[in-house]
Amino acid sequence: MASGKPLAAVTCTAPVNIAVIKYWGKRDEELVLPINSSLSVTLHQEQLRTTTTAAVSPDFTEDRIWLNGREEDVGQPRLQACLREIRRLARERRRTQDGDALAPSPSYKVHIASVNNFPTAAGLASSAAGYACLAYTLAQVYGVDSDLSEVARRGSGSACRSLHGGFVEWQMGVQADGTDSVARPVAPESHWPELRVLILVVSAEKKLTGSTVGMQTSVETSALLKFRAEAVVPARMREMTRCIQERDFQGFGQLTMRDSNQFHATCLDTFPPIFYLNDTSRRIIHLVHCFNAHHGQTKVAYTFDAGPNAVVFTLEDTVAEFVAAVRHSFPPESNGDKFVQGLQVAPALLPDDLKAALALEPTPGGVKYIISTQVGPGPQVLRDPQAHLLGPDGLPRPAA
Amino acid sequence: MASGKPLAAVTCTAPVNIAVIKYWGKRDEELVLPINSSLSVTLHQEQLRTTTTAAVSPDFTEDRIWLNGREEDVGQPRLQACLREIRRLARERRRTQDGDALAPSPSYKVHIASVNNFPTAAGLASSAAGYACLAYTLAQVYGVDSDLSEVARRGSGSACRSLHGGFVEWQMGVQADGTDSVARPVAPESHWPELRVLILVVSAEKKLTGSTVGMQTSVETSALLKFRAEAVVPARMREMTRCIQERDFQGFGQLTMRDSNQFHATCLDTFPPIFYLNDTSRRIIHLVHCFNAHHGQTKVAYTFDAGPNAVVFTLEDTVAEFVAAVRHSFPPESNGDKFVQGLQVAPALLPDDLKAALALEPTPGGVKYIISTQVGPGPQVLRDPQAHLLGPDGLPRPAA
Repeated sequence: MASGKPLAAVTCTAPVNIAVIKYWGKRDEELVLPINSSLSVTLHQEQLRTTTTAAVSPDFTEDRIWLNGREEDVGQPRLQACLREIRRLARERRRTQDGDALAPSPSYKVHIASVNNFPTAAGLASSAAGYACLAYTLAQVYGVDSDLSEVARRGSGSACRSLHGGFVEWQMGVQADGTDSVARPVAPESHWPELRVLILVVSAEKKLTGSTVGMQTSVETSALLKFRAEAVVPARMREMTRCIQERDFQGFGQLTMRDSNQFHATCLDTFPPIFYLNDTSRRIIHLVHCFNAHHGQTKVAYTFDAGPNAVVFTLEDTVAEFVAAVRHSFPPESNGDKFVQGLQVAPALLPDDLKAALALEPTPGGVKYIISTQVGPGPQVLRDPQAHLLGPDGLPRPAA
Repeated sequence: MASGKPLAAVTCTAPVNIAVIKYWGKRDEELVLPINSSLSVTLHQEQLRTTTTAAVSPDFTEDRIWLNGREEDVGQPRLQACLREIRRLARERRRTQDGDALAPSPSYKVHIASVNNFPTAAGLASSAAGYACLAYTLAQVYGVDSDLSEVARRGSGSACRSLHGGFVEWQMGVQADGTDSVARPVAPESHWPELRVLILVVSAEKKLTGSTVGMQTSVETSALLKFRAEAVVPARMREMTRCIQERDFQGFGQLTMRDSNQFHATCLDTFPPIFYLNDTSRRIIHLVHCFNAHHGQTKVAYTFDAGPNAVVFTLEDTVAEFVAAVRHSFPPESNGDKFVQGLQVAPALLPDDLKAALALEPTPGGVKYIISTQVGPGPQVLRDPQAHLLGPDGLPRPAA
């Protein structure tokens, strides 16, 4: 029973973010409220992004979603929470403000299609970009302009940090209803132009403990996690904010490494213990400390999320040498020319004294490839109608 | 200038101990006073022991020491601290008690020879057995019968726990001079006859951070270690003592695993981080949790010290099946018949459902071999003069 009304469709992109003060553990599972604040760097969408199209029409009879071309169950609880929340905000806006009379009714069903421009197999947390993009795109299509932290958060906690570019904090908040558990920019994308990000994609061997289940077990069993959340993180949030504001790379890098290590320490203190770092991750950690020791200062810093891949921060002038050190320690197996993807990295010769300082038996193939990127902006609306992942019939376009 | 007086020689053996509540960190480097109490199980000397001969003679012109047949520098500080301390106790005994008039003068120089019956390459902490044996043997030869905790401790903190058999606690003490930082038996060797110990010797790839330097860095940099020592360990000491007294294997095993994990978590929270577990260690941990989950109870428990080797506790009736599970997960490479050393382990077939539950890709050669042992007694004096590692001339016997 076609209404004849045209389909309203919006397509947006959203970025991946990487936490430098880690989020691990919820104080409220339902509302996705964290036990501590966290702070992240938004990565550039040129290299890593989710693209989502949302289309609403009075003709749609049910909500539907396609991820990377495959239809998925729209009934899964986190997705349902996002949809419920965005519709609540849309109805609120209609009621309390003059509102956009042209905005589609919140009761219209929605079709959603979402794709990542990076392989899921890379083990890069895609859920943050995915739910941030979902929240942002749904807000556009339903005409919602309020804070989207809660919508994104209900999908995946760290997704709220992908709603902004640059440097972003997720304030844990104190309210029971979560209204003050929101993401806020700490510094814009343009704040620290020399900062570079290298993602070292590591060969993983097996299925990992999912972060949802993992952090729940940690909250239940790790005394160290509770102590970290209450007694360590608050001061670290202040210190990290200062380092970013002052563009103090030494401080930023050291605290980033310490906080990554402490997060993984609380995983190990969980019972049964959770391991996300493997032997290659440990070799990367060792490489970074050798590299810094050789230079007598913190020139590169690693951080690891719930997987073995390293995210390395450094400054523009150090990228080439560090990549050469990675190449030396983890000789590429077959894709030598595609070893570095993303932002171009100049070839560099590794000085002999640095080579000697690395003191590592090279591990061929340990690092599969490197994604070279930088700090980037928050979600974007794509104005080009060609960008839509859904066709005029509301179904995925063959090309998508 | 021979005095003609016969050489006084004593030979003793001492055991390895493995902590189930871990010691990591000193509050006083000089006196070797720990930041928390610890608790250990003494392993049987039939499988693992240090043998030490000490000989004193007015003819000796200097203190000398031979370790595993090679003369070592007697001037190293920890050894000097032990010698100084034992002579202080010997002089004190002469002064305050009627004393053994026949005991050699504390001013006599000593020759020491010490051997382990297990390869140093196995990565089993030999310093605890070594310094306990040194303290015990020197006490015998100089006629000292007071508490030897301090003598052993000054050599290596955990050595004081090897002064007793069975289950032993090292009370951290509160005195600044360390006089109340002593090892005490919690339960004798005979207390829990069903308890078995399996040491899974793992292929290590590189030099590890030494525990002396490692724990010092941890004390300086890890907030989690400080919290653990102050807020977690005291209750765990009480709980572990209860588990041992009641022979509660479930409780003993779980707390042993949790405490091992927490110790390694504090290593990871150290900056730069310290890693002692490798991928094989992690596979063993996973195997143990799968094994227990399959049985619906804690039937085996792991603990790891400053290295990748696992020490596994279990009860007599579970040894055969667990060893079969280890064989399945880590197929022996070449020494199939020598894979299990020490106490005999009956061959066992792994039930198919357990094999399926292990859910691990087998890792050939990951575990080099297993030492099968049990709880054992404290240091022993060997009465057989043939046991002496030093000949009548005070030099190592060729056979030793």
